Amino acid sequence: MTQPQGLFITFEGIDGAGKSTQARALGAWCEAGGREVVLTREPGGSAGAEEIRRLLVEGAPDRWSGETETLLFTAARRDHLERVIAPALEAGKVVICDRFADSTRVYQGAARGELRAFVDTLHALAIQREPDLTLILDMDPEVALSRGLARRSGEDRFEEEGLAFQQKLRAGFLALAEAEPGRCRLIDAGRAPEAITADVIACAQEALR
Amino acid sequence: MTQPQGLFITFEGIDGAGKSTQARALGAWCEAGGREVVLTREPGGSAGAEEIRRLLVEGAPDRWSGETETLLFTAARRDHLERVIAPALEAGKVVICDRFADSTRVYQGAARGELRAFVDTLHALAIQREPDLTLILDMDPEVALSRGLARRSGEDRFEEEGLAFQQKLRAGFLALAEAEPGRCRLIDAGRAPEAITADVIACAQEALR
Repeated sequence: MTQPQGLFITFEGIDGAGKSTQARALGAWCEAGGREVVLTREPGGSAGAEEIRRLLVEGAPDRWSGETETLLFTAARRDHLERVIAPALEAGKVVICDRFADSTRVYQGAARGELRAFVDTLHALAIQREPDLTLILDMDPEVALSRGLARRSGEDRFEEEGLAFQQKLRAGFLALAEAEPGRCRLIDAGRAPEAITADVIACAQEALR
Repeated sequence: MTQPQGLFITFEGIDGAGKSTQARALGAWCEAGGREVVLTREPGGSAGAEEIRRLLVEGAPDRWSGETETLLFTAARRDHLERVIAPALEAGKVVICDRFADSTRVYQGAARGELRAFVDTLHALAIQREPDLTLILDMDPEVALSRGLARRSGEDRFEEEGLAFQQKLRAGFLALAEAEPGRCRLIDAGRAPEAITADVIACAQEALR
């Protein structure tokens, strides 16, 4: 029996769009189909990256400059990639990740500081790897923001920047979907979770073929 | 009265060579001469960078890959530069820093993983700034290692890699002194502290002219 090919799927979108719920639903579907699944998230996903995550998601919005923040996200991503994602893909597993490099492109590259060249140079140097499929969950930031803040996890450093910021993020993700149609699928996340999951699975089915 | 020009002086060399002692002595001498001094160190030196420092100096030697480690050092340095070093230099102060980018060039760039191209690309992207004067304290690694380990600070992640590693570091610092004679001064640190301080001050006097 040949080992199945590894597949790297990421979820992207603004806070509160339902990424982690949909990631879990896709993971369950893949496992029901007999695939081994690694469900992970960023920032974090490996022991070291989770420690860096704490520096990133807690504290005041101006705690780090955009450049320092991008360096920390990239350090966490490198650790996550080396220790979790790459080994799982090599073993033929499906890796489903809640946020990846696109979040850095949109948050640090566009919405926070227009650092896209800085972000891209760092990615080319230290990460390189792109997902096989990226599912962008798109929804109205006003709805998403009310959901996101309602969580109050103590990890609100980005969510506290308010509605105008979330609107910039949404625009960034929409631009990304347009710029990379081969890898990215845009999914309307303003619907019932089951309807979103049906679209998510349809996209994954196509990628798994 | 015109404001004096800021001056950025760094100390480099293997663990246990006496960098922090000499940095303090130079700071006292500069203050006695009427200059405002900021005495700082890396990794760390700013509130955020000190938090990153804890991730870097504690734990097992293989806790991070060379690439991840270099990203973390660069994130800490960027924060330190933005929040402490650059403002002090702009205010005309003398900044004396125990370790800076040369340590990354030698530790991550040469001794640990031959990542010099990676280190240089990151420096050019995120740091750029070089010291005005770098004092490299050179001494026999066997002597330095016994001093360094004798400290037992709980920050022994690098010192625990042993004598062969310290010898590679020394070679790296010697190569750096040779490659950058305009900025770097090599000082024999295997002598009495007072004799070393006299050389340190002579180099600083020349730079302050």
